[in-house]
Amino acid sequence: MQLEGLSLIGEKTGARGGKIFTGVNPTTGAALPGEFHSASTAEADAAVKLASEAFASYARWSGKQRAALLNRIAERLEANATLIVERGNLETGLPAARLQGELARTCFQLRFYGEAAASGLVTGARIDHADPNRKPLPKPDLRSMMIPLGPVVVFGASNFPLAYSVAGGDTASALAAGCPVIFKAHPAHPGLSEIVGQLVTQAVKESGAPEGLFSLLFDAGHEVGGALVKHPLVKAVGFTGSRQGGRTLMDLAAARPEPIPVYAEMGSVNPVFILSEALNTKAEEIAAGLHGSVTLGVGQFCTNPGLVFVETGAGAKQFLAKLEALVQATPAGTMLTAGLCAAYQRGVKIFSAVTGVKSSGTILPDASAGAAQANAALFVTSAETFLSNHRLMDEVFGPSTLVVECTSREQLLQAAQRLEGQLTATIHGTVNDLSASQPLVEVLATKAGRLVFNGFPTGVEVAHAMTHGGPYPASSDGRSTSVGTRALERFLRPVSFQNCPEAVLPDELKEANPLQITRLVDGKLN
Amino acid sequence: MQLEGLSLIGEKTGARGGKIFTGVNPTTGAALPGEFHSASTAEADAAVKLASEAFASYARWSGKQRAALLNRIAERLEANATLIVERGNLETGLPAARLQGELARTCFQLRFYGEAAASGLVTGARIDHADPNRKPLPKPDLRSMMIPLGPVVVFGASNFPLAYSVAGGDTASALAAGCPVIFKAHPAHPGLSEIVGQLVTQAVKESGAPEGLFSLLFDAGHEVGGALVKHPLVKAVGFTGSRQGGRTLMDLAAARPEPIPVYAEMGSVNPVFILSEALNTKAEEIAAGLHGSVTLGVGQFCTNPGLVFVETGAGAKQFLAKLEALVQATPAGTMLTAGLCAAYQRGVKIFSAVTGVKSSGTILPDASAGAAQANAALFVTSAETFLSNHRLMDEVFGPSTLVVECTSREQLLQAAQRLEGQLTATIHGTVNDLSASQPLVEVLATKAGRLVFNGFPTGVEVAHAMTHGGPYPASSDGRSTSVGTRALERFLRPVSFQNCPEAVLPDELKEANPLQITRLVDGKLN
Repeated sequence: MQLEGLSLIGEKTGARGGKIFTGVNPTTGAALPGEFHSASTAEADAAVKLASEAFASYARWSGKQRAALLNRIAERLEANATLIVERGNLETGLPAARLQGELARTCFQLRFYGEAAASGLVTGARIDHADPNRKPLPKPDLRSMMIPLGPVVVFGASNFPLAYSVAGGDTASALAAGCPVIFKAHPAHPGLSEIVGQLVTQAVKESGAPEGLFSLLFDAGHEVGGALVKHPLVKAVGFTGSRQGGRTLMDLAAARPEPIPVYAEMGSVNPVFILSEALNTKAEEIAAGLHGSVTLGVGQFCTNPGLVFVETGAGAKQFLAKLEALVQATPAGTMLTAGLCAAYQRGVKIFSAVTGVKSSGTILPDASAGAAQANAALFVTSAETFLSNHRLMDEVFGPSTLVVECTSREQLLQAAQRLEGQLTATIHGTVNDLSASQPLVEVLATKAGRLVFNGFPTGVEVAHAMTHGGPYPASSDGRSTSVGTRALERFLRPVSFQNCPEAVLPDELKEANPLQITRLVDGKLN
Repeated sequence: MQLEGLSLIGEKTGARGGKIFTGVNPTTGAALPGEFHSASTAEADAAVKLASEAFASYARWSGKQRAALLNRIAERLEANATLIVERGNLETGLPAARLQGELARTCFQLRFYGEAAASGLVTGARIDHADPNRKPLPKPDLRSMMIPLGPVVVFGASNFPLAYSVAGGDTASALAAGCPVIFKAHPAHPGLSEIVGQLVTQAVKESGAPEGLFSLLFDAGHEVGGALVKHPLVKAVGFTGSRQGGRTLMDLAAARPEPIPVYAEMGSVNPVFILSEALNTKAEEIAAGLHGSVTLGVGQFCTNPGLVFVETGAGAKQFLAKLEALVQATPAGTMLTAGLCAAYQRGVKIFSAVTGVKSSGTILPDASAGAAQANAALFVTSAETFLSNHRLMDEVFGPSTLVVECTSREQLLQAAQRLEGQLTATIHGTVNDLSASQPLVEVLATKAGRLVFNGFPTGVEVAHAMTHGGPYPASSDGRSTSVGTRALERFLRPVSFQNCPEAVLPDELKEANPLQITRLVDGKLN
């Protein structure tokens, strides 16, 4: 496959002439071959118009037809795994094994969401039969189902260059829901984006889907993204990235003449609470697990555990000693971009400078290291210092964590109550610990989208029961998830048909249930 | 029951001293007995704090416990029907029979939503079992369910002083979902609001629910409402009213440090499309039905059909002649408030003044009539005039409708494509008509929350399959409904439990399914 460096607008390529940028190898800091041309706002407009035209016919596709398209995209990706992994490795510094695993996850996700569309799981069909004899007024026949919102703009993440980029979770859930996608490529992996974009475009064409169902736009800056979010034909936005970026999109979307939903997954510090019996029995095991989770992928996960609360005592001492030793022994790792690495090092310096915070095991950054080399960092402080320094709740994106020593379970609860919205919250405890901590569990359920017990938050299962979201600012909309089959629901809305003749009803709602999907009929699922 | 004219803040009453207002009899324009004292923003803050405390325990109530509370509220209302209907009639001018019917609907709604909570219908429980042998990584046990958002602020509607006011749909769905309610009373029916508020407060107390689960605040202006929407402990807003009012709340909520969802149902013009065969066979019958729907309750429904598209021809002529005769013979009616009536008369004058619009059968307002007396109005225009005057798409709240004559089915489709978001869209057609109009049905499904066939949009069934919402500006959030059991979903969010010990899991997710609710287990409903 030839990299052309041009946007993909339906079946055509974009023009040259916009601002040029390149991929960068984060391990060396060197520019990679291939020039990428920023799209114009006129091209963004053209992509949205094509998507809107495509929507008119794609919205009529059955769940099974959508599933076939998603399966075909997965097949195309698998057939080009070598190319994908090679370019991905050059642009992101992520090891080949990680990229292979992420590709498998991406393909599983495409197929799993297609299956959810095909099975009618997200159709939410409901039928309330008429009762012409009801008094004082007859009851009409009423049937409802979920239908797609319309064209969706998706912004790719830098830290999951496959699973949350071009053919990633937001694209897969929008396509499965029946919505065309206009994808704004992340400038940190433009070559990989183009490869995957070309494969998606091929699959769209081979499936007989309308041109414009998928477009991919490059931009060195923010102009194209802003134009897309403000476009009147765009009906929803998916985003994975920083809080600042997500909030900017939320504000843009809320200020439109017709406000639209923005699903921004903005990350969090993912607090871990370690209760005393667990600490006293498994201090070193928990320390090792935590260290693995903090440093996995050089800490570049939105579920990276950046904040740990322990109950003081002998167990906590043993835990900290082990964790400190492991952090000190951690080799430096290459971060995704020099920019992320610089932000990480700024964050580490800010924490180091707070009075009452001990840098324990932290090796401060060495300016002479490679462009994007980062060391693990461990900070320790008291509950009092934590509770009086709001900055210590900020996310430091990278392999860093802050341990807060609490002198009582009440202090743990107080810290939990003070937290802002989180993607996850984790509790380590024996059955005794947990039984005595029901209030902590209840508070954390109001703060996080997912509660993890005796484990670690990294590793987000693609499943029906996954919630990867959480109250603001972890995500823009705590009522949603960006992973799992509930992710499709973000791009759907209900519509009701009242006294509609059988011949005009969509198949999903016909009396005989030709699609054989589960429906809520007169209040009962069958 | 003694009317005190004071806000209800949990179990206490608010202070005197705020700006005083009274109820007004719209039939006479005279002030009604009883002075109502505006709450202070400090009282609004106190109500929210109480609600937040109440949430901590109420969120743990089972669906059955919530249903018992809602049933008790319904019983209290029924036991005080005479008092409610009498004061309601004085403050709103609505006839006793209408208020009795609305009270019955309100009580049905409370019980129906309680049942949805008790049966687990809205729990959305999901279980994905672990697979410790999965390669390359073991699969965790993952379980998810919907939990309540937190305190909800509800703004009552003037046009449904029972079903969409103090104990109406938004309050019922929030309480059923597990959320405390801070209710901002509509100043057009303060005495009725206080009566119902006192009954809700009694039911809350008798049910052993925490104080603060319900508060009722009076305000002559907008200060209290604004303070409530901006309060950091408030997690969602329900509103039924004007587009301007709804948008103001949306903008306030979106600008918060932590944005929150606003569910504003802002009404629409509810277009009706009458196809040629239907017109040629049932012109007079459709005209009579339409007239009934337009003038029902003096046109004060958000589903009032304010826009009608007909295919020109003999049928259309017959239809218009009949409709004109019926409109001319319609007696004047009393609107809810003098303000609504004045706005209606302004709207009628604006439509009358548009070049190309014929006022057909309209009796222009008589300044010497009672304070809030309104006559029915009928306007007729061509598709060309309609398509070139955006103002003609505006809602005129009251007993008015605009008939647009289209010379072809393509023109009908073009008009449909031009519409903004609607609560409802209606099509009258024979099976032949409808079979030839699939594109029209498809366009209308993208524009409206509910499609009505061979009927009229007024009359919103409280049912599982109801969607009373629709794309902006019909509602703030086209993904939601404010009527039917899906209304509860507005106040819920998913939370997942990963590898949670059985003893710590909520009953809804325990392996043995002690609540006997339907759950999605490993992808299958059972």
